[in-house]
Amino acid sequence: METRLVDVALLPDEMEKIRAEGFAAVVIDILRASTTIVTALANGAARVIPLTTVEEARARREKEPESLLGGERNAVPPPGFDLGNSPREYTPERVNGKTIIITTTNGTRACQSADRAGAGPVVIGGFVNLQAVTDFCRSFKGPLLFVCAGCQGRFSLEDSLYAGAVIKRLGSSGFQLTDGARTCLTLYDRWQDGDLAAVIANGDHGRRLAGLGFHGDIQLAAAVDSHPVLPIYRDGEIRLQSLGCGD
Amino acid sequence: METRLVDVALLPDEMEKIRAEGFAAVVIDILRASTTIVTALANGAARVIPLTTVEEARARREKEPESLLGGERNAVPPPGFDLGNSPREYTPERVNGKTIIITTTNGTRACQSADRAGAGPVVIGGFVNLQAVTDFCRSFKGPLLFVCAGCQGRFSLEDSLYAGAVIKRLGSSGFQLTDGARTCLTLYDRWQDGDLAAVIANGDHGRRLAGLGFHGDIQLAAAVDSHPVLPIYRDGEIRLQSLGCGD
Repeated sequence: METRLVDVALLPDEMEKIRAEGFAAVVIDILRASTTIVTALANGAARVIPLTTVEEARARREKEPESLLGGERNAVPPPGFDLGNSPREYTPERVNGKTIIITTTNGTRACQSADRAGAGPVVIGGFVNLQAVTDFCRSFKGPLLFVCAGCQGRFSLEDSLYAGAVIKRLGSSGFQLTDGARTCLTLYDRWQDGDLAAVIANGDHGRRLAGLGFHGDIQLAAAVDSHPVLPIYRDGEIRLQSLGCGD
Repeated sequence: METRLVDVALLPDEMEKIRAEGFAAVVIDILRASTTIVTALANGAARVIPLTTVEEARARREKEPESLLGGERNAVPPPGFDLGNSPREYTPERVNGKTIIITTTNGTRACQSADRAGAGPVVIGGFVNLQAVTDFCRSFKGPLLFVCAGCQGRFSLEDSLYAGAVIKRLGSSGFQLTDGARTCLTLYDRWQDGDLAAVIANGDHGRRLAGLGFHGDIQLAAAVDSHPVLPIYRDGEIRLQSLGCGD
């Protein structure tokens, strides 16, 4: 049986050294961009447009005045934004049918780095859509790359734990794991029997968010398979996988 | 009891986000710069001068013609170098009393990044001097930072495994671990009962070195406490800790 490579960029900086043509990529920013984007699309948003800077996001909204402007800087929404980066704000009432322009510190960069490295398809992964991402990874025939967003240039436990969770569900047969992938799997093996929300809350990023009053967001980020959808990043936009295009 | 922070930069890129004033730093490049530098000094070299580029190294040797020029590019010594980056070349016969000018791809950068971040003292750690580094970390009263060199900008299992080994020996009492430090400890817990040389040889960097014929270097890198010395990086030079300056 042919083995497929499974690689992980533990930080977006690692992406500068990675050529990913032929790889499918899973972009991971558990706290909170991945969770928020999956939630928004599952709740009916038409598309999510991730942009790097607040200025770009504001300029794009001027061109698309029907859209909603969401995101964060230092965990809170910039002035004039409609929404922050908390998944609980992205309710069906608020987002159904809408375009969401979003700018977040870590997640947007991870998305773009996967794209620049030549990976495709690029999907958005969180614990909220763990099985949907696992199914996608299993059905994809080529090598896999997980891109962890981290937090402000630093490693984040919860992103790597998630990569490990997908790798665990894929099973060991037929995959060749890089050092980064083995590390993620080891982390998942260590913590898989614990309370996931508590593990995330005890991480560096989780403690920071909890200190800012976002403890509820950690609970939502840890709600495994609560939104069984597959968001795909393509041409600067994230949309749900179209129904009926498989074979 | 006051707790001391234990942080790990899993890659030198993470150092760009780290302020380390007041931290002692342990620079780790198990394959092979750390192992080679510890070996050279244990075997009597007077000092090791790590430099970033081949050109800098050659220029420095012109100023110090009695010195030896060592290091690697793509794992082999550049033309005209006296020594490569293999610890077995740095024998007492070859290095005793000498200044070694060394340029390696990953280790030199890690040394300099620790220094630039404001850490001090900065020591060089390998499995070959594991207990000496652990003793140093225990006696230092402030926070600790481990700087993993990785391999060509990618994460390397063996560097993090070593950070985990030191953290394990320090014991859990009185330390607060960042996500990176917890990850290293988890890796060490996973593999501590295995054959260390085999674990290193199975890593991404180990497989690459073994493929180039350097399997013997992996055995030397895994020889725990074979060189119980403490190299300290200061003002661009690495020397052994002076005897008699403790209290």
